[in-house]
Amino acid sequence: MSASFATPPKPPYYAVIFSSLRTDQGDDAYGEAAARMVELAAQQPGYLGVESTRGADGFGITVSYWIDEASILGWKRNLEHTAIRERGRKEWYQQFELRVAKVERAYGWSRSDAPRSPVHE
Amino acid sequence: MSASFATPPKPPYYAVIFSSLRTDQGDDAYGEAAARMVELAAQQPGYLGVESTRGADGFGITVSYWIDEASILGWKRNLEHTAIRERGRKEWYQQFELRVAKVERAYGWSRSDAPRSPVHE
Repeated sequence: MSASFATPPKPPYYAVIFSSLRTDQGDDAYGEAAARMVELAAQQPGYLGVESTRGADGFGITVSYWIDEASILGWKRNLEHTAIRERGRKEWYQQFELRVAKVERAYGWSRSDAPRSPVHE
Repeated sequence: MSASFATPPKPPYYAVIFSSLRTDQGDDAYGEAAARMVELAAQQPGYLGVESTRGADGFGITVSYWIDEASILGWKRNLEHTAIRERGRKEWYQQFELRVAKVERAYGWSRSDAPRSPVHE
Protein backbone atom coordinates (compact mmCIF):
# COMPACT_ATOMS: atom_id res chain seq x y z
CA MET A 1 0.00 0.00 0.00
CA SER A 2 1.26 3.47 -0.76
CA ALA A 3 1.99 5.92 2.04
CA SER A 4 -1.27 7.61 2.81
CA PHE A 5 -3.17 9.15 5.64
CA ALA A 6 -6.71 8.18 6.46
CA THR A 7 -9.21 11.04 6.53
CA PRO A 8 -11.90 10.06 9.03
CA PRO A 9 -14.36 12.74 10.20
CA LYS A 10 -14.01 14.45 13.58
CA PRO A 11 -13.92 12.19 16.65
CA PRO A 12 -15.42 10.22 18.20
CA TYR A 13 -14.86 7.18 16.00
CA TYR A 14 -13.09 3.84 16.45
CA ALA A 15 -9.61 2.58 15.61
CA VAL A 16 -8.43 -1.02 15.29
CA ILE A 17 -4.69 -1.07 15.94
CA PHE A 18 -3.14 -4.21 14.47
CA SER A 19 0.58 -4.69 15.25
CA SER A 20 2.22 -7.71 13.69
CA LEU A 21 5.50 -9.44 13.08
CA ARG A 22 5.73 -11.33 9.80
CA THR A 23 7.24 -14.73 9.31
CA ASP A 24 9.76 -14.91 6.49
CA GLN A 25 7.47 -16.94 4.24
CA GLY A 26 4.90 -16.21 1.58
CA ASP A 27 5.70 -12.63 0.65
CA ASP A 28 3.84 -12.67 -2.66
CA ALA A 29 0.68 -14.30 -1.35
CA TYR A 30 0.78 -12.09 1.72
CA GLY A 31 1.07 -8.94 -0.39
CA GLU A 32 -1.89 -9.99 -2.50
CA ALA A 33 -3.98 -10.84 0.55
CA ALA A 34 -3.12 -7.57 2.27
CA ALA A 35 -4.18 -5.58 -0.78
CA ARG A 36 -7.38 -7.60 -1.04
CA MET A 37 -8.17 -6.97 2.64
CA VAL A 38 -7.85 -3.21 2.13
CA GLU A 39 -10.16 -3.43 -0.90
CA LEU A 40 -12.66 -5.55 1.02
CA ALA A 41 -12.59 -3.41 4.18
CA ALA A 42 -13.33 -0.32 2.09
CA GLN A 43 -16.61 -1.94 1.02
CA GLN A 44 -17.73 -2.61 4.62
CA PRO A 45 -20.38 -0.39 6.18
CA GLY A 46 -18.86 2.04 8.66
CA TYR A 47 -15.33 1.95 7.21
CA LEU A 48 -13.50 5.30 7.56
CA GLY A 49 -10.04 4.55 6.21
CA VAL A 50 -6.78 2.76 6.93
CA GLU A 51 -3.12 3.58 7.56
CA SER A 52 -0.50 0.89 7.26
CA THR A 53 3.24 0.47 7.24
CA ARG A 54 5.87 -2.22 7.74
CA GLY A 55 9.60 -1.86 8.29
CA ALA A 56 12.39 -3.94 6.79
CA ASP A 57 12.55 -5.87 10.08
CA GLY A 58 9.10 -7.38 9.44
CA PHE A 59 7.32 -5.44 12.17
CA GLY A 60 4.22 -3.63 10.93
CA ILE A 61 1.33 -1.55 12.19
CA THR A 62 -2.03 -1.19 10.44
CA VAL A 63 -4.69 1.07 11.89
CA SER A 64 -8.18 0.92 10.42
CA TYR A 65 -10.86 3.44 11.35
CA TRP A 66 -14.56 2.75 11.83
CA ILE A 67 -17.73 4.62 12.69
CA ASP A 68 -18.64 2.36 15.60
CA GLU A 69 -18.10 -1.02 17.23
CA ALA A 70 -20.87 -2.66 15.24
CA SER A 71 -18.95 -1.88 12.03
CA ILE A 72 -15.83 -3.51 13.47
CA LEU A 73 -17.82 -6.60 14.37
CA GLY A 74 -19.31 -6.68 10.86
CA TRP A 75 -15.81 -6.60 9.39
CA LYS A 76 -14.62 -9.31 11.77
CA ARG A 77 -17.47 -11.55 10.61
CA ASN A 78 -16.87 -11.00 6.90
CA LEU A 79 -16.31 -14.51 5.53
CA GLU A 80 -13.43 -13.73 3.22
CA HIS A 81 -11.74 -11.78 6.02
CA THR A 82 -12.18 -14.73 8.36
CA ALA A 83 -10.56 -17.11 5.87
CA ILE A 84 -7.62 -14.77 5.34
CA ARG A 85 -7.14 -14.34 9.10
CA GLU A 86 -6.90 -18.10 9.41
CA ARG A 87 -4.20 -18.18 6.76
CA GLY A 88 -2.40 -15.36 8.55
CA ARG A 89 -2.10 -17.46 11.69
CA LYS A 90 -0.92 -20.50 9.75
CA GLU A 91 1.62 -18.85 7.49
CA TRP A 92 2.25 -15.14 7.68
CA TYR A 93 2.44 -14.00 11.27
CA GLN A 94 4.89 -14.77 13.99
CA GLN A 95 2.89 -12.72 16.46
CA PHE A 96 0.23 -10.05 16.44
CA GLU A 97 -1.61 -7.80 18.87
CA LEU A 98 -5.00 -6.31 18.08
CA ARG A 99 -6.48 -3.42 20.03
CA VAL A 100 -9.87 -1.79 19.63
CA ALA A 101 -9.89 1.83 20.76
CA LYS A 102 -12.25 4.78 20.75
CA VAL A 103 -10.63 7.86 19.26
CA GLU A 104 -11.51 10.82 21.44
CA ARG A 105 -9.30 13.59 20.02
CA ALA A 106 -7.36 14.09 16.82
CA TYR A 107 -4.88 16.68 15.60
CA GLY A 108 -3.28 16.98 12.20
CA TRP A 109 -0.46 19.06 10.74
CA SER A 110 0.79 19.44 7.22
CA ARG A 111 3.78 21.37 5.91
CA SER A 112 1.64 22.84 3.16
CA ASP A 113 -0.75 24.31 5.76
CA ALA A 114 2.04 25.76 7.89
CA PRO A 115 2.39 29.54 7.96
CA ARG A 116 5.28 30.85 5.89
CA SER A 117 8.01 32.97 7.37
CA PRO A 118 6.77 36.45 8.19
CA VAL A 119 6.97 38.88 5.30
CA HIS A 120 7.75 42.54 5.99
CA GLU A 121 5.06 44.54 4.30
CA MET B 1 13.98 0.93 17.20
CA SER B 2 13.90 -2.83 17.02
CA ALA B 3 10.70 -4.68 16.17
CA SER B 4 8.92 -5.14 19.43
CA PHE B 5 5.48 -5.36 20.88
CA ALA B 6 4.38 -3.25 23.80
CA THR B 7 3.06 -5.17 26.79
CA PRO B 8 0.51 -2.93 28.48
CA PRO B 9 -1.79 -4.43 31.12
CA LYS B 10 -5.40 -5.34 30.37
CA PRO B 11 -7.63 -2.55 28.99
CA PRO B 12 -8.78 0.07 29.59
CA TYR B 13 -5.73 2.25 28.88
CA TYR B 14 -4.90 4.93 26.35
CA ALA B 15 -3.14 4.91 22.98
CA VAL B 16 -1.59 7.82 21.12
CA ILE B 17 -1.53 6.95 17.42
CA PHE B 18 1.03 9.09 15.60
CA SER B 19 1.08 8.64 11.80
CA SER B 20 3.70 10.61 9.94
CA LEU B 21 5.35 11.15 6.61
CA ARG B 22 9.03 12.09 6.78
CA THR B 23 10.74 14.71 4.69
CA ASP B 24 13.89 13.48 2.98
CA GLN B 25 16.19 15.50 5.20
CA GLY B 26 18.05 14.96 8.45
CA ASP B 27 18.02 11.20 8.74
CA ASP B 28 20.83 11.00 11.30
CA ALA B 29 19.52 13.74 13.56
CA TYR B 30 16.00 12.35 13.25
CA GLY B 31 17.12 8.85 14.21
CA GLU B 32 18.91 10.20 17.27
CA ALA B 33 15.91 12.29 18.29
CA ALA B 34 13.49 9.39 17.81
CA ALA B 35 15.62 7.14 20.02
CA ARG B 36 15.89 9.90 22.63
CA MET B 37 12.09 10.36 22.61
CA VAL B 38 11.55 6.67 23.31
CA GLU B 39 14.05 6.84 26.17
CA LEU B 40 12.41 9.97 27.57
CA ALA B 41 8.84 8.69 27.21
CA ALA B 42 9.79 5.55 29.13
CA GLN B 43 10.69 7.75 32.11
CA GLN B 44 7.30 9.51 32.11
CA PRO B 45 4.73 8.58 34.75
CA GLY B 46 1.96 6.45 33.26
CA TYR B 47 3.97 5.18 30.27
CA LEU B 48 2.99 1.62 29.26
CA GLY B 49 5.07 1.02 26.13
CA VAL B 50 5.49 1.91 22.48
CA GLU B 51 5.30 0.25 19.07
CA SER B 52 6.81 1.92 16.05
CA THR B 53 7.60 1.23 12.43
CA ARG B 54 8.36 3.09 9.23
CA GLY B 55 8.38 1.82 5.67
CA ALA B 56 10.90 2.60 2.94
CA ASP B 57 8.38 5.11 1.53
CA GLY B 58 8.83 7.35 4.59
CA PHE B 59 5.37 6.68 6.04
CA GLY B 60 5.48 5.61 9.68
CA ILE B 61 3.19 4.81 12.57
CA THR B 62 4.14 5.05 16.24
CA VAL B 63 1.66 4.03 18.91
CA SER B 64 2.48 4.84 22.53
CA TYR B 65 0.42 3.47 25.40
CA TRP B 66 -0.47 5.30 28.60
CA ILE B 67 -2.39 4.68 31.81
CA ASP B 68 -4.63 7.71 31.43
CA GLU B 69 -5.11 11.07 29.73
CA ALA B 70 -3.24 12.90 32.47
CA SER B 71 -0.11 10.89 31.61
CA ILE B 72 -0.46 11.85 27.95
CA LEU B 73 -0.77 15.51 28.90
CA GLY B 74 2.30 15.19 31.14
CA TRP B 75 4.28 13.77 28.23
CA LYS B 76 3.03 16.49 25.90
CA ARG B 77 4.26 19.14 28.36
CA ASN B 78 7.70 17.60 28.84
CA LEU B 79 10.09 20.38 27.84
CA GLU B 80 12.56 18.29 25.86
CA HIS B 81 9.66 16.63 24.04
CA THR B 82 8.23 20.05 23.19
CA ALA B 83 11.55 21.23 21.74
CA ILE B 84 11.90 18.08 19.64
CA ARG B 85 8.31 18.40 18.37
CA GLU B 86 9.14 21.91 17.19
CA ARG B 87 12.13 20.61 15.28
CA GLY B 88 9.95 17.86 13.80
CA ARG B 89 7.65 20.45 12.27
CA LYS B 90 10.57 22.49 10.94
CA GLU B 91 12.66 19.72 9.48
CA TRP B 92 11.52 16.12 9.69
CA TYR B 93 7.84 15.84 8.90
CA GLN B 94 5.93 16.50 5.75
CA GLN B 95 2.66 15.73 7.49
CA PHE B 96 1.43 14.01 10.61
CA GLU B 97 -1.82 13.00 12.28
CA LEU B 98 -2.10 12.40 15.99
CA ARG B 99 -5.02 10.60 17.56
CA VAL B 100 -5.70 9.95 21.23
CA ALA B 101 -7.82 6.86 21.81
CA LYS B 102 -9.07 4.81 24.72
CA VAL B 103 -8.27 1.13 24.27
CA GLU B 104 -11.33 -0.87 25.24
CA ARG B 105 -10.39 -4.41 24.16
CA ALA B 106 -7.19 -6.19 23.23
CA TYR B 107 -6.34 -9.57 21.79
CA GLY B 108 -2.95 -11.11 21.18
CA TRP B 109 -1.67 -14.17 19.38
CA SER B 110 1.76 -15.69 19.15
CA ARG B 111 2.98 -18.64 17.10
CA SER B 112 4.78 -20.03 20.11
CA ASP B 113 1.50 -20.12 22.07
CA ALA B 114 -0.43 -21.78 19.25
CA PRO B 115 -1.35 -25.44 19.65
CA ARG B 116 0.90 -27.75 17.69
CA SER B 117 -0.38 -30.11 15.08
CA PRO B 118 -2.21 -33.03 16.67
CA VAL B 119 0.07 -35.89 17.62
CA HIS B 120 -1.22 -39.44 17.36
CA GLU B 121 -0.54 -41.04 20.70
